Amino acid sequence: MSRNLPIGIFDSGVGGLTVYRALHERLPEERFVYLGDTARVPYGTKSLATVERYAVENARFIEAHGVKLLVVACNTASALALPAIRRSVSVPVIGMIEPGARAAVRAAMGKSIGVIATESTIRSGAYRRAIRELEPEANVVERACPLFVPLAEEGWAESDVARTVAAEYLGDFRPGGAGHVGIDALVLGCTHYPILRRVIRETIGDGVRLVDSGEAAAEAVESLLASEGLARPRADVDDLCDARAGDEASARRRELCDDLDRFYVTDAAERFARVAERFLGFAPRMLEAVEIWGRDELHTR
Amino acid sequence: MSRNLPIGIFDSGVGGLTVYRALHERLPEERFVYLGDTARVPYGTKSLATVERYAVENARFIEAHGVKLLVVACNTASALALPAIRRSVSVPVIGMIEPGARAAVRAAMGKSIGVIATESTIRSGAYRRAIRELEPEANVVERACPLFVPLAEEGWAESDVARTVAAEYLGDFRPGGAGHVGIDALVLGCTHYPILRRVIRETIGDGVRLVDSGEAAAEAVESLLASEGLARPRADVDDLCDARAGDEASARRRELCDDLDRFYVTDAAERFARVAERFLGFAPRMLEAVEIWGRDELHTR
Repeated sequence: MSRNLPIGIFDSGVGGLTVYRALHERLPEERFVYLGDTARVPYGTKSLATVERYAVENARFIEAHGVKLLVVACNTASALALPAIRRSVSVPVIGMIEPGARAAVRAAMGKSIGVIATESTIRSGAYRRAIRELEPEANVVERACPLFVPLAEEGWAESDVARTVAAEYLGDFRPGGAGHVGIDALVLGCTHYPILRRVIRETIGDGVRLVDSGEAAAEAVESLLASEGLARPRADVDDLCDARAGDEASARRRELCDDLDRFYVTDAAERFARVAERFLGFAPRMLEAVEIWGRDELHTR
Repeated sequence: MSRNLPIGIFDSGVGGLTVYRALHERLPEERFVYLGDTARVPYGTKSLATVERYAVENARFIEAHGVKLLVVACNTASALALPAIRRSVSVPVIGMIEPGARAAVRAAMGKSIGVIATESTIRSGAYRRAIRELEPEANVVERACPLFVPLAEEGWAESDVARTVAAEYLGDFRPGGAGHVGIDALVLGCTHYPILRRVIRETIGDGVRLVDSGEAAAEAVESLLASEGLARPRADVDDLCDARAGDEASARRRELCDDLDRFYVTDAAERFARVAERFLGFAPRMLEAVEIWGRDELHTR
């Protein structure tokens, strides 16, 4: 396995871009291939069988592009389909749940942990299991926050609507309120939720530590690359950039290197680019629409 | 074509149940087959090519169940895919747009018409075209209201959140406010929106007539059945119910007849049943999950 291969990332849509951002910031020397399954988004309300099938198709697509590692940058797919994904590809796979659970146990010092995520992630109990495996005595409070995803995608993350929704979902995590539910850390267990970080923080107050599952996964990726000897050495990137940039200044070089990250979506590339700008601060430059062909028939099961 | 065949309905998910309800109320003697494409919902943010492909697959599935007429109970599919659907099945097809536009022109007496719908429906310009075809002088104000769908599905239709969101989207339709946009009628151009009817009414005031595209479509179905001689005579239903109910009382008979409506979903039947209860007041009794099999590969286009 060449350490110069890119890292593969897939998500049900744009949410995984928060994970891409965390990876890119932590590992600037690495290159990435990203797939957003925008034709079938969202996964958060869908069944195990369906999420498994979609996730495996995505994983195979990414593997076929030649990657050294696959990051499942979608909490729902990680919660429901990680075993199926691992069976279907031969590269190492990192999901969101285990790193998120580990960071939460560390942040809460093993005490009371809140988890917010999609309906399907919560229903799977994946976070609860992962946290309890690390810390059997931990108290885990799980809660689905389905409206956070459309709020983030519509660019309403800092609106009064977001504040009202957050108060409805999370108001009781704030100390001093009626029916207060005490937690020490709160896992943002859906890749969209970091976009609402500020409103979530305002709602729950300063006493609760926020755990971004994407940042936790980026840390896990860094460790794995180091332990497997798969990290791309800085010098290789400079060579590559030099080869591409010729004699130009290093800022320009950096810019050209960023161009090496490739983004694929299964539908509506234009909308993806628009929302991506909100999530990343810039629109991906190498963005291509790919198609998943369905058979013509429906089968009764 | 037998007049005793059921009427087929498909939607991207649960939203079309408001259309089913309108049809069922207007045509109690008719039976229905409903497909909700919950594995690929929502359509409202997806591209024309993708919505066309999904809609044609759904239409063929419904036609294979032996129906006399197909109702496309999804504004997005109607706006984007009606020609493709009509090419792919041999039964008459009724969509949401033309009936909704006709009812709006009547309600606004040809003057100023607001249309609220999904992002894709608005982007298609289908309502504007259909209204202008009937009334070239009409003023049409179109607006996407993407958060209304999750609010309806989460059961938050009458919440403070819904009020805040409605004020954000529609506040300027209320006379007397700042930047008032005057309209005479407002088309609820997404099948989820009737669930939010009360909050929408509160927001825009009593002076604007609300047009429910599902009710308009039910009227169009009634006309078509009459003109084609396809309406099921009352007596036939009584015979059928008698045959099934034996000597039992008529209330029980009616109940058994309701049982004849069949519901299919492509995923997450449990969630569908739960949300359906919110939309219909009861959970469908004959509900079955069916599967759409995708090929294993992704093709670059």
